[in-house]
Amino acid sequence: MSFSVLITGCNRGIGLELVKQFLKKNPSPAHLFATARNTTAAGELSELAAANENLHLVQLDVTNFKDYPEAVKQVSQIVGENGLNLLINNAGLLPQNRDLDAVTPEDMMNAFEVNCVAPLFLSKAFLPLIKKAADVNSVEPIGIHRAAIVQMSSSVGSIAENSGGGLYAYRCSKAALNMGMKSLSVDLTGTNILEMSMHPGWVLTDMGGPNAQITTETCCSTMLNTLDGLTEKDHGAFLRYNNTPIQW
Amino acid sequence: MSFSVLITGCNRGIGLELVKQFLKKNPSPAHLFATARNTTAAGELSELAAANENLHLVQLDVTNFKDYPEAVKQVSQIVGENGLNLLINNAGLLPQNRDLDAVTPEDMMNAFEVNCVAPLFLSKAFLPLIKKAADVNSVEPIGIHRAAIVQMSSSVGSIAENSGGGLYAYRCSKAALNMGMKSLSVDLTGTNILEMSMHPGWVLTDMGGPNAQITTETCCSTMLNTLDGLTEKDHGAFLRYNNTPIQW
Repeated sequence: MSFSVLITGCNRGIGLELVKQFLKKNPSPAHLFATARNTTAAGELSELAAANENLHLVQLDVTNFKDYPEAVKQVSQIVGENGLNLLINNAGLLPQNRDLDAVTPEDMMNAFEVNCVAPLFLSKAFLPLIKKAADVNSVEPIGIHRAAIVQMSSSVGSIAENSGGGLYAYRCSKAALNMGMKSLSVDLTGTNILEMSMHPGWVLTDMGGPNAQITTETCCSTMLNTLDGLTEKDHGAFLRYNNTPIQW
Repeated sequence: MSFSVLITGCNRGIGLELVKQFLKKNPSPAHLFATARNTTAAGELSELAAANENLHLVQLDVTNFKDYPEAVKQVSQIVGENGLNLLINNAGLLPQNRDLDAVTPEDMMNAFEVNCVAPLFLSKAFLPLIKKAADVNSVEPIGIHRAAIVQMSSSVGSIAENSGGGLYAYRCSKAALNMGMKSLSVDLTGTNILEMSMHPGWVLTDMGGPNAQITTETCCSTMLNTLDGLTEKDHGAFLRYNNTPIQW
């Protein structure tokens, strides 16, 4: 079979590391699509694309909804009738203004647009290609090697686990994303497409900051193991990178 | 004591009925503030204000964040050092485009602004007045008669109970509101201000539509009983109008 993956927000952090680890896998995906807001200034990602024929860079600012059809067209021309197997909505935003005094309505709106609206509408835009993959691979069990959409959420988006308060813009946007994922999982019932939310852990990236608990490498290798093992029972689930469930 | 209440979105539906029932209570609040986008064209609400000295109309479109200080000033000039006891963020929006095919990014952003950002920032704007009430009424137990913020949420905003899918804009905005409420409840720890989310039931209003299950009158009388009985244990809770808990 021809396994294809698209990951958003790949110029750095978890997105970039996911690209590296997918490239190192044996076998590596037939086609790995990595989006970045500026693919010409993508540094390490550009070098990887130059060295790996199966890595395709797609220029996309996920908040430019009008650009989605062009991104879908680019992917469609390469994957053809095999469709797209796995969409990982990784691009995200953590506003600087975190507490009640500092947060502004604009922080809330920006975080919601990037962290909730964009992944849901990118899922919607790529759905025809993902449905193709689900139908083509009818012998494959439900999982990422057949057809799946993974929303990169955060345990900070768990209302039940919110004991720290604050972080209004980020928390609200991720709780909203989890809700959108849940609705999408219900709406995709019977399509053989897996849909779930993933918490990558508190990772040593620009976003995670210096007090984070795990390296980007550990995060991504553990997460890829978890993704590989997803089955029908994980449809609509909210899981940590290490395959433990998170309450809503 | 001087009990004061502010309710948003009072030109119709649940907001209007809450105003009527608060006016009929014995004793009625010393000051009842009712906001509407256009108080000069508020029909029944205007008539009630003409007939009841303790009802004050405040013109406010909750998405005009720059108008919040003026609304706070109007309320402050009336309640003075007694502060505001109870804020009910009732104004809400249910976009027409409900399913995956129909929903647009604009539907998502509009619903989030009205249903999540506005109630949180209105809570923030009125917090100094609500803190005054919490401090002035130091013999009163924690509850709405001391100082409280009630967010009008919806069981449709429960991720755990989402078995129907769709309704993306409304569901995401209400899940986000519940998260913001939860953060605010944590941040208000020790202030003696009660903060919680309320599901009013599926009510026969313009928003609820003709298939709804309860009348606006039943909704509001039951909800007022529940609000009256709220105690410290309900801080950060998500309750139905009839005082039963809802999962996140």
